[in-house]
Amino acid sequence: MKKSEVVSHIFHGHIPKTAKHEKGLGYAPTNIALCKYWGKRDTELNLPHTSSLSIALPDKGSMTTLTLNDKSSETIILNDKEIALDSVFAQRTKAFLDLFRANQKWYLKININMNIPVAAGLASSASGFASLVCALNDLFDWKLHKNDLSILARLGSGSAARSLWTGFVEWHAGVRPDGMDSFGEPLAFEWPELCVGILTMSSDEKPISSREAMQTTVNSSLLYNSWPRKVSQDLSIIKQALQVKNFALLAGTAESNALAMHATMLSSWPPICYFLPETIAAMHKVWDARKQGLQLYFTEDAGPNLKLLFLKEDTARVQALFPEVEIIRLFDQV
Amino acid sequence: MKKSEVVSHIFHGHIPKTAKHEKGLGYAPTNIALCKYWGKRDTELNLPHTSSLSIALPDKGSMTTLTLNDKSSETIILNDKEIALDSVFAQRTKAFLDLFRANQKWYLKININMNIPVAAGLASSASGFASLVCALNDLFDWKLHKNDLSILARLGSGSAARSLWTGFVEWHAGVRPDGMDSFGEPLAFEWPELCVGILTMSSDEKPISSREAMQTTVNSSLLYNSWPRKVSQDLSIIKQALQVKNFALLAGTAESNALAMHATMLSSWPPICYFLPETIAAMHKVWDARKQGLQLYFTEDAGPNLKLLFLKEDTARVQALFPEVEIIRLFDQV
Repeated sequence: MKKSEVVSHIFHGHIPKTAKHEKGLGYAPTNIALCKYWGKRDTELNLPHTSSLSIALPDKGSMTTLTLNDKSSETIILNDKEIALDSVFAQRTKAFLDLFRANQKWYLKININMNIPVAAGLASSASGFASLVCALNDLFDWKLHKNDLSILARLGSGSAARSLWTGFVEWHAGVRPDGMDSFGEPLAFEWPELCVGILTMSSDEKPISSREAMQTTVNSSLLYNSWPRKVSQDLSIIKQALQVKNFALLAGTAESNALAMHATMLSSWPPICYFLPETIAAMHKVWDARKQGLQLYFTEDAGPNLKLLFLKEDTARVQALFPEVEIIRLFDQV
Repeated sequence: MKKSEVVSHIFHGHIPKTAKHEKGLGYAPTNIALCKYWGKRDTELNLPHTSSLSIALPDKGSMTTLTLNDKSSETIILNDKEIALDSVFAQRTKAFLDLFRANQKWYLKININMNIPVAAGLASSASGFASLVCALNDLFDWKLHKNDLSILARLGSGSAARSLWTGFVEWHAGVRPDGMDSFGEPLAFEWPELCVGILTMSSDEKPISSREAMQTTVNSSLLYNSWPRKVSQDLSIIKQALQVKNFALLAGTAESNALAMHATMLSSWPPICYFLPETIAAMHKVWDARKQGLQLYFTEDAGPNLKLLFLKEDTARVQALFPEVEIIRLFDQV
């Protein structure tokens, strides 16, 4: 099935053609998965093999402002800099907008402001596409349900499906070939004591995109066959840990899930290894600290950087251990 | 089933009591697995979940000399130094000998010479137990078939089952609960151009023994469920590669198999990570060199050190890349 068919389905064949407001605004936070999304059952629609669960970073995200452009092409401004229309970023954005205009002749001036640390592996495309969808919803007055916005954001970037909400979000894998049951769902848990700290090991570009790494894993790693069972178990443990506020259970399961994801990559061919020597050094440091009684865990996405998980009361000890850590706010109360 | 029952079975209930020779001699090489042994279906008998395949290092091994002791206890001399009888090494050796003497009153002077680099992760216990079994066979004139010697060596240390032969050896997992079908088999391939180079990253003691790491993996890693299928596939590819002398296929499969083994450990809980920062740095160096066209691969056992795999013609290039590499002879012809 094609993305355009999904869009047509959501709009019952009638995609609004006229901007209802002068400006369309959309904000979406980025998110960190505690139970990872790794591997697609449909690469066209970004449908995952498994469900996943994330926590939003409310202060780190993308603000997108849309206005109709008077030129017959897009203008894209990212953090106050105009982006070349032949860049990968612009091409992906344009291809996404094409889904909504079919043969219509409107063009947008797209102003995106992201305050996501560059190269920290904080899924800027998730927050970017989610904010773009929200801004389109505003501009054209789509009045879509958030589930549908989540589905549309997913067509841009898989994990964008989770960036429509703050707090904890579960992205249901769904089973339908058209993916109409594959969207995010906010989970009604708050945990103001929970902290995330970013350890940036490298700002170099990734040696392999997560899109490509995922596909190589699915196609070549025999251990990936056990990944769905691992996710299903971890997801249920994490939700249970959220229910009873058991930090060690939550963070330990998140760490194990991330390591298992990297394990599926290591066992791919060619091997995919996002670990840098510094990544492994930091992991050993975390494990040593844990043996000394510190409740410190980590998660790692498709990049070399670690995201530390700890409780607010341990902030000083974590900062003493990792003076370079960037601590990220998760809940308003903190 | 108990080890003593297996021994009794092999000797049809009549274990020879009398030394036939004044001295018993046994030599056994150590071995490096190209398809790994990871996980036991029976921890008492060291029966593996999967078959495995190794190459012997003919010059690196253990020479064991046995004589009857005039004291009523063992004397154990390892590399010209007497070992305390309450040490782990002596206790394991003594427990092994107990299998053969039941209530008989003989004691041995055991002289073991190993020329295996310390802490390079070269499975000294494999070669040690295999040489001890050969020396017992000589001293008591057991006249056992090598399959039976392999089974007996396995009771001491799993991978010792492969150390009874030089060259390539397959250790059949077997299916019998008594393990009488779980022994090594030499494979009639020679490959004088094949080279192994040891990269020693650390001489520190392992943070966790392979025996314990294996058990934690089997008990806690969901990805381990896919390990038997991975081994079965790799084993068949490696044998095919040996048949047609396809080095890239052989070494690539060995590398993938080793990475998958470490992947099962990473996804265990608590996580098991034998990688040091230096290990990861060396891996990236190997992968980069391969992208430059060098046919260089690695395998890694339950320790931080890498064993490089390459062809003789590339020796100079490998030494230029890794000046510290220790190159190990595999075949007499080399």
